[in-house]
Amino acid sequence: MRVNSEDERTYLETVFDKLGFTKEDGELLADTLVDADLRGISSHGIQRLAWYRRMIADGTIVPTNQPKVVRELPGTVMVDANQNMGQIAAHFAMNKVIEKAKQVGVGIAVVRNSNHFGIAGYYARQALDAGLVGIALTNTRPLVVPTNATQAFLGSNAFAFGFPASPHPFMFDGATAAVAGGKIQLADKKGMDLPGEWVVDKDRQVVTDPKEAEEILATAAFSEGEQKGGGLVTLGGNDEVNANYKGMGNSIVVELLTGILAQGSISADTVSGKHDFSQFLFAFDPAFFGDPETLKADATAMFDRIRGLKSAPGKTIWVPGDREYRYLEENKKNGVSIDDKTFAEMTAIGEELGVKLPDEI
Amino acid sequence: MRVNSEDERTYLETVFDKLGFTKEDGELLADTLVDADLRGISSHGIQRLAWYRRMIADGTIVPTNQPKVVRELPGTVMVDANQNMGQIAAHFAMNKVIEKAKQVGVGIAVVRNSNHFGIAGYYARQALDAGLVGIALTNTRPLVVPTNATQAFLGSNAFAFGFPASPHPFMFDGATAAVAGGKIQLADKKGMDLPGEWVVDKDRQVVTDPKEAEEILATAAFSEGEQKGGGLVTLGGNDEVNANYKGMGNSIVVELLTGILAQGSISADTVSGKHDFSQFLFAFDPAFFGDPETLKADATAMFDRIRGLKSAPGKTIWVPGDREYRYLEENKKNGVSIDDKTFAEMTAIGEELGVKLPDEI
Repeated sequence: MRVNSEDERTYLETVFDKLGFTKEDGELLADTLVDADLRGISSHGIQRLAWYRRMIADGTIVPTNQPKVVRELPGTVMVDANQNMGQIAAHFAMNKVIEKAKQVGVGIAVVRNSNHFGIAGYYARQALDAGLVGIALTNTRPLVVPTNATQAFLGSNAFAFGFPASPHPFMFDGATAAVAGGKIQLADKKGMDLPGEWVVDKDRQVVTDPKEAEEILATAAFSEGEQKGGGLVTLGGNDEVNANYKGMGNSIVVELLTGILAQGSISADTVSGKHDFSQFLFAFDPAFFGDPETLKADATAMFDRIRGLKSAPGKTIWVPGDREYRYLEENKKNGVSIDDKTFAEMTAIGEELGVKLPDEI
Repeated sequence: MRVNSEDERTYLETVFDKLGFTKEDGELLADTLVDADLRGISSHGIQRLAWYRRMIADGTIVPTNQPKVVRELPGTVMVDANQNMGQIAAHFAMNKVIEKAKQVGVGIAVVRNSNHFGIAGYYARQALDAGLVGIALTNTRPLVVPTNATQAFLGSNAFAFGFPASPHPFMFDGATAAVAGGKIQLADKKGMDLPGEWVVDKDRQVVTDPKEAEEILATAAFSEGEQKGGGLVTLGGNDEVNANYKGMGNSIVVELLTGILAQGSISADTVSGKHDFSQFLFAFDPAFFGDPETLKADATAMFDRIRGLKSAPGKTIWVPGDREYRYLEENKKNGVSIDDKTFAEMTAIGEELGVKLPDEI
């Protein structure tokens, strides 16, 4: 079914209000979920609401807590999310980073005691909206098997990077793993086999059955005890010969800049104890390096040249961000798509809290 | 053949002296090449000398020029390499970045009008030696075909990241492309087919003949006119289904932070005109986030856990840096390996400039 994104927003804001978040925090949380759904990244949209609800119920998330600055220098800040949602702390931290970048040219933040923060691209765009270049990273549940290993250990670890361009920014936003778990759920819903080297089993054989893959990932991500084995492969696929150790390297870089620097849980340890995630945010002022309009025009010209290269028959060349901004335009017009399972969860939460559901359009 | 690395250093320092570099610059250039050979990254070692010699002869490189600060803020600096080797400017710029990181917590630099700077990891280690976390990026010649394209456009674009750990740092250093061109030359020397999805031809078919692959890459990287087509694939391989668009994204991020920010040549344009490359350097002080010994111990513990995961039969799990530091130890003892073609080039340069060659050991 499809609903109008503004109706989705109203529903979410009301839910977050009833759950005890401040008005400002609830609006932010709603915006990150609506934004993800509008951009076609529904794995990080309203379908996460039921999980958030459970974490509030079990005390992992405390909606009334506010993020705190642990310490800061002119270029760096450490933020304690104070056991509230990652969105609230990351938004707060990126605002601090933006201030710093405007003062000394560059800023970085590490967020600790945090949790899921929605799509990483949201915070890169926060920097873009302030005229800056932005990067956002987070660790995740353990889903990814390192090169040659047969057990999940690394997070799918998101990396987002935004750079000004026309008609829309360059927006690279996704898991450092070969694919995000959401792609497997999608294949399952469509009843199709997994088409690539996405998931391996405990013997490091490629899995094509989406149900088997989902079971492997669910076990890796959520069981404290003995692992079933297997998980997502790193970018580069199953075989070392195709340089999947580079994908592993990218993933470890994110682990170091999040869980390790924050002295929080690394992805492998988010299955037990605090269930905390950590984030890293980075922004700098491109105006320091040159006239912003010139830099934007130069980046745009490069992207147009890439889109115009000779292509393989029947294939289109696109630049990161192209699909996301196309979905954004379409979904603003036609509404966002919500699957049946998610709508059932929304219905249960609506009944529990007395919140009216968005109408189908 | 093998030579003692200190003899290699003496040879190189004398050559660079005769070519007109200052004593300090010549020692730095020699150190970057010896360091690469010691670490088993011989594609970026002394085998580059003949190319450097040609660029000096044709005026692309002016050995007496010194890098200049274009402008700076407390956290950022723009450096003009002034048409000298990238090593000199990048080393100078990273020293500025280190100063900034010690003052305001973080620093970034962009280097313009630069050239080849050896291994990116050298500058990440420069930050590590100062107790910091370091990143170094460079664009390159155009070698890489974007997702679905059949023409090379992007650089193989290096990314290096260093983080303190025991018994050696985490050192992730390499091309953002699936593999570096040096791997193909190595396969050719060994007379073996290319074992993975490394290079595609003008029809985007995977190439297994190393000679054909070398010809494709040489044409892509060095001809100003019509391209033969094909090139290295992005990390993720030949097929979009294995997320090679993520490898493309990583590569474009480097293009934006180097050629675009520097307002220099993007990789695609290094085949003509100024032949300039650009670099991006980044460092921050981990001590701001926590006790450095604790962070180092936490990172080390994570790496040990990764190395100790269950592995596929007969396979070893290693962490980026493990191989490089093993080679470093071995080659310090046993000397560095120099191939016949490179030694012939060294001989010609030695004869031209009156410099004694290192003895075979």
